[in-house]
Amino acid sequence: MTYTKENFNNTFKEKINTINTALDTYIPIQNEIPEIIYDSMRYSIFAGGKRLRPILMMACYEALGGHGDEIIPFACAIEMIHTYSLIHDDLPTMDNDDFRRGKPTNHKVYGEAVALLAGDALLNLAFETMITAAKKYPQIPCLDALDIIAKASGTRGMIGGQTMDLLSENKDIDINTLQYIHENKTAAMICAAVKAGAAMAQASIEEIQIVERFGYCLGMAFQIQDDILDVISTTEQLGKPIHSDIKNHKSTYVSIVGLEESKQYVEKLSKEASDALHTLTNHTLTNHILQENGHFLLSLTKYLMHRSY
Amino acid sequence: MTYTKENFNNTFKEKINTINTALDTYIPIQNEIPEIIYDSMRYSIFAGGKRLRPILMMACYEALGGHGDEIIPFACAIEMIHTYSLIHDDLPTMDNDDFRRGKPTNHKVYGEAVALLAGDALLNLAFETMITAAKKYPQIPCLDALDIIAKASGTRGMIGGQTMDLLSENKDIDINTLQYIHENKTAAMICAAVKAGAAMAQASIEEIQIVERFGYCLGMAFQIQDDILDVISTTEQLGKPIHSDIKNHKSTYVSIVGLEESKQYVEKLSKEASDALHTLTNHTLTNHILQENGHFLLSLTKYLMHRSY
Repeated sequence: MTYTKENFNNTFKEKINTINTALDTYIPIQNEIPEIIYDSMRYSIFAGGKRLRPILMMACYEALGGHGDEIIPFACAIEMIHTYSLIHDDLPTMDNDDFRRGKPTNHKVYGEAVALLAGDALLNLAFETMITAAKKYPQIPCLDALDIIAKASGTRGMIGGQTMDLLSENKDIDINTLQYIHENKTAAMICAAVKAGAAMAQASIEEIQIVERFGYCLGMAFQIQDDILDVISTTEQLGKPIHSDIKNHKSTYVSIVGLEESKQYVEKLSKEASDALHTLTNHTLTNHILQENGHFLLSLTKYLMHRSY
Repeated sequence: MTYTKENFNNTFKEKINTINTALDTYIPIQNEIPEIIYDSMRYSIFAGGKRLRPILMMACYEALGGHGDEIIPFACAIEMIHTYSLIHDDLPTMDNDDFRRGKPTNHKVYGEAVALLAGDALLNLAFETMITAAKKYPQIPCLDALDIIAKASGTRGMIGGQTMDLLSENKDIDINTLQYIHENKTAAMICAAVKAGAAMAQASIEEIQIVERFGYCLGMAFQIQDDILDVISTTEQLGKPIHSDIKNHKSTYVSIVGLEESKQYVEKLSKEASDALHTLTNHTLTNHILQENGHFLLSLTKYLMHRSY
């Protein structure tokens, strides 16, 4: 079968709607005190995020034969973790960013203290949501997904990357240190999203290893593309100020190895990600539905590699 | 049997050692980058905390027939959550406290950004630790304990209490609002500690309800005693500045209902907590070992009610 651009766009939008509808139920909107914490959580959760991590998780789950709503709480949880990390990252003591996705950052609207607590609350709610699901679906390996996500968001993943990023500001760092930051701050959670999707679909160890390679390459390509866009895009396209890395005195792939080599590395990683997916396709996708889901995941990978925002 | 003061002290110290030894293994000390995040986490985890929540959890687990090391990761996790909340609470944007347990607060030593991340990391590690245990002990109702703890530390528990506390600074609040703050900011996690211990011991629904009542009364008494000690104790005894509530323009039980009525309320709550424990003792403690563990829990309750620091 062929997977048209229209098919892709429709499936993409459908998945965004599924995620947004579910997120809406997880964060109370009224009759709950203290209201401001829920307002603040909702403000950042519904600030126009692209839902890439949850969609990647769902797509991977489905491509590997998973079906049903069991994946949704986990997909929402990874978006909550991503959002909490952005709220805390934007705080004055960290990156001190005033805008995110074209809107004032959380602390600019709710103040630093509430923003801090809203971040804490989203991390906590992510685990709460997954734990509730794990109790509800004892027949699904939810604990494996919980384990993958918890490890990726901790000090040996995202927080480790954020810490190293912080230590590297205003410093000339080498490519190994930058690699560590990108691997942990960004790629770890993208990789965890697809791995958790595969685990929930009860994929084999071999399949999960291929998915892990796919997730790593995709995550790294995604972050280096971010470094590139910060230089070549416009504020309007990005929804946040360009040249923010320079402003924050942050080393990037572009600043260390140059624009051309960065672009070539993104190409190389994209190819590796696609190759991993093709291996997976040959390995597992034997029936029609799985093929269709596999094609969505392939299209999604291409879409992410060629994004301009 | 009688439970002497010496027995109590020995059991108490033994449990502190067990917790500290386990916490030491959960947070890497070397060969891990970025080192500063682990240093910062360890600094606050080993800053002389009384380990009340983990000890309560273990004592409740054992009094209800639980045995073995399965409880330890959960006991350590609740201490990590407690510690993260203190680190974030002490930040300049929150309470802006320079001292905690007689030592400079985390951000005074490591800076605000690292303190923020160390708090995030401890919350994340708490869940990571419990999830690893849940995978390791499939025969124990670990998910129930995870669920109890996650709910208590979220917006319908501790974070809700912290938010309301923040909103109430420099305001005249009524006793209902203060009750909400104390119930959620403090009692929720103490209650979760004993409930999770009971759940892990596979206690009956009836037993868990009694334990919940015990935990609520103990938690509230503990917090109101804190309000009282902030007025009548000394900086030396408390290990932190006294009159901090007045300094931070915070309403307390003492400021709203007065010292005498506060003391009476602590007495009433203590009695209710002890009564609940006696009901539990009559209900379950039939053999010698359970009786001994029950006596430790009773002694611990008395000790907490009469503390001067």
